[in-house]
Amino acid sequence: MYPKPIQNIIDLFTKFPGIGPRQATRFAFHVLKKPGLAKELAMRLAVLENTIGFCNQCFRTLEQNDSGLTPDELTRGGFCALCRDSKRELSLLAVVEKEADMQNLEKTGSFLGLYHILGGVISPLDQDSPKKLRLRELHERVKKNLITRPENFEVILATNSTAEGDTTAMYIERILSPLKENYPQFKISRLGRGLSLGAELEYADHITLKNALTNRK
Amino acid sequence: MYPKPIQNIIDLFTKFPGIGPRQATRFAFHVLKKPGLAKELAMRLAVLENTIGFCNQCFRTLEQNDSGLTPDELTRGGFCALCRDSKRELSLLAVVEKEADMQNLEKTGSFLGLYHILGGVISPLDQDSPKKLRLRELHERVKKNLITRPENFEVILATNSTAEGDTTAMYIERILSPLKENYPQFKISRLGRGLSLGAELEYADHITLKNALTNRK
Amino acid sequence: MYPKPIQNIIDLFTKFPGIGPRQATRFAFHVLKKPGLAKELAMRLAVLENTIGFCNQCFRTLEQNDSGLTPDELTRGGFCALCRDSKRELSLLAVVEKEADMQNLEKTGSFLGLYHILGGVISPLDQDSPKKLRLRELHERVKKNLITRPENFEVILATNSTAEGDTTAMYIERILSPLKENYPQFKISRLGRGLSLGAELEYADHITLKNALTNRK
Amino acid sequence: MYPKPIQNIIDLFTKFPGIGPRQATRFAFHVLKKPGLAKELAMRLAVLENTIGFCNQCFRTLEQNDSGLTPDELTRGGFCALCRDSKRELSLLAVVEKEADMQNLEKTGSFLGLYHILGGVISPLDQDSPKKLRLRELHERVKKNLITRPENFEVILATNSTAEGDTTAMYIERILSPLKENYPQFKISRLGRGLSLGAELEYADHITLKNALTNRK
Repeated sequence: MYPKPIQNIIDLFTKFPGIGPRQATRFAFHVLKKPGLAKELAMRLAVLENTIGFCNQCFRTLEQNDSGLTPDELTRGGFCALCRDSKRELSLLAVVEKEADMQNLEKTGSFLGLYHILGGVISPLDQDSPKKLRLRELHERVKKNLITRPENFEVILATNSTAEGDTTAMYIERILSPLKENYPQFKISRLGRGLSLGAELEYADHITLKNALTNRK
Repeated sequence: MYPKPIQNIIDLFTKFPGIGPRQATRFAFHVLKKPGLAKELAMRLAVLENTIGFCNQCFRTLEQNDSGLTPDELTRGGFCALCRDSKRELSLLAVVEKEADMQNLEKTGSFLGLYHILGGVISPLDQDSPKKLRLRELHERVKKNLITRPENFEVILATNSTAEGDTTAMYIERILSPLKENYPQFKISRLGRGLSLGAELEYADHITLKNALTNRK
Repeated sequence: MYPKPIQNIIDLFTKFPGIGPRQATRFAFHVLKKPGLAKELAMRLAVLENTIGFCNQCFRTLEQNDSGLTPDELTRGGFCALCRDSKRELSLLAVVEKEADMQNLEKTGSFLGLYHILGGVISPLDQDSPKKLRLRELHERVKKNLITRPENFEVILATNSTAEGDTTAMYIERILSPLKENYPQFKISRLGRGLSLGAELEYADHITLKNALTNRK
Repeated sequence: MYPKPIQNIIDLFTKFPGIGPRQATRFAFHVLKKPGLAKELAMRLAVLENTIGFCNQCFRTLEQNDSGLTPDELTRGGFCALCRDSKRELSLLAVVEKEADMQNLEKTGSFLGLYHILGGVISPLDQDSPKKLRLRELHERVKKNLITRPENFEVILATNSTAEGDTTAMYIERILSPLKENYPQFKISRLGRGLSLGAELEYADHITLKNALTNRK
């Protein structure tokens, strides 16, 4: 019902997470109404395509121009500021599903180790999902770390407390556990489960209550 | 906390209607994750900027390439398909706030007249708001129509049933009413007020109930 | 799981409109915790059972002790204050589903006629539902009114704008319409339909928009 | 606006937890409409008042007729079925805010100890709130237990993960801790804190994330 170039934009916005056709339409007209906004967005998106890469160690996004690397290094990939930060604890590695999880953990100021961003979760419905995650890279990285510090290395499986997050953590545990044979002090841990802030016993689900009882201290 | 090119995109998305920083971040990573999406969006937005104009009569959006007009006509502006449709009733003109209102009215199949899109509302807090609306164009258009069909012309002020919609309708009525001196049969109407579909008397607000009583039939 | 006397109360509260077992439990413990509340509630409920009747004309609830009637009149039923109010317009009769609808209409201060409370709606799923409404009483009342003021009497079918409300209004119209043969000036009306306060054209449903267009003025 | 006996009931219902005047009105008419309901409710409430007491040990509600006690025992108070159950672990005592918390813990089937119901929380705004809780009874009970099993007794402070729940737990800890001097193996624990079922790292609050990191395992 709208001119094709508008409908095309609406269709793209409709695929955005959590957006239906109605809000996508509002987005399209928001862009149309503000003079210059379409041009600015287009330009910013082109910049995105050309300048954003991924940290070669933790796989968070990385602006390649600002990475302080020579063009040659850039091609071979670089490390992000956090991975290059000498104050981080090298013996702790948090495995998270996506960059936003890492950002939220960073905001707490309580975690001082390094991260590994999987880039997704293992879905029981998608047999190919393990291949889409950075699992081989994780295995390599853990092995290297164990060679350097065999007596002091811990991987924290910091996945969501959801079915998919649990499946993913279990899958990774199965992959990494064999390394314990050669490195018996290698630790694999999961985030603590229990009552979250504000939880009320009357309304808590039974699994959370069981966890809260088991993990009491 | 994110690389600047990503943060720039997040900032633009945060200004989209109804979007906060969290969802804007999800949008940015949605774009980053799908290969080619940033490029496609950028291209579609550039097309938008270059091909979308406005109908010279009703001011809805119009794809200029598809308007069936010669390049010369394009410069002078063209009429949209609805304005050129000989089956529409020329004696009925619905004045709406924005194109989405028109689209929703069209979907009912109950309105056969033409439209005039104001491009906004009059806000009591923004003294300049009347200047931003297509009011002069409306006045011209109504005058021309009254010359052609002095005995049969009606303007329906189809604004929202909100404070701003009512203010806008009242303002337009004040502008158009003087034309009644020369054209006593010129009609200015407002959409009917009363119970909407699903309304329950127990919970209806008092103004709606008053309207429903007054407009009973 | 709770002692039987508590569980019995929870079960009764669970049947209250909009209340699930969880909130019903909170109610039961609210009653248990406040000393004297159970006793007070029990007493008030006994009073309810013994003192509340219904107005013999409009069928709203009526406290029989306060009705200013002699014991004999009480047995034969009495009229509520509104029905006895000489300032009300006798030529207007609003038929509503339930007393709460009447109360909300009264609060508007815009309706000066009398009421008839049906005591429910006609449900297409419940064939007996017409029998549960005060339809015979309505028919009698309308007939009497038409004898007294044949040239000036209007029934407003003030049912909800829902499927059941519409069915009920249609049903009543079919019952009352034959009276127009003898009383051609007898009017049966329905509450006005259209945009309710705050309605936006972009989001309005199509039936409401059609009504708003048809009932424009 | 409603007859006084109805308004009185509405007023009582309006004080029910989470109920406003509108829903209270629906409750009153629900009671009025069902024949016999007012009478049944009144009777059930009177029964409540006369038969419900509290377990003399854990303070949950208790139906005195069904407690299997002689009238004389009744006067001196009795123990509930759970407190008399020989299969429960006597070395574990969960202190909860209210009976509904206990019921939800019981449903998990994971807790086999006994309970102590405080009957509320300590509110920083209500200086008298500690006096309203069964704290002296708790202290007595813990002391007796420590005499019987000095080497094996644990109190789990199972309060909500809210500001008031935390204040209450801290307050109780301060009261019970001095007992550790004589009984160094006396354990006081709190429910585990961390991710609840379904929690997502991206949206988790910082305190919960900190707890989840600290309590990882």
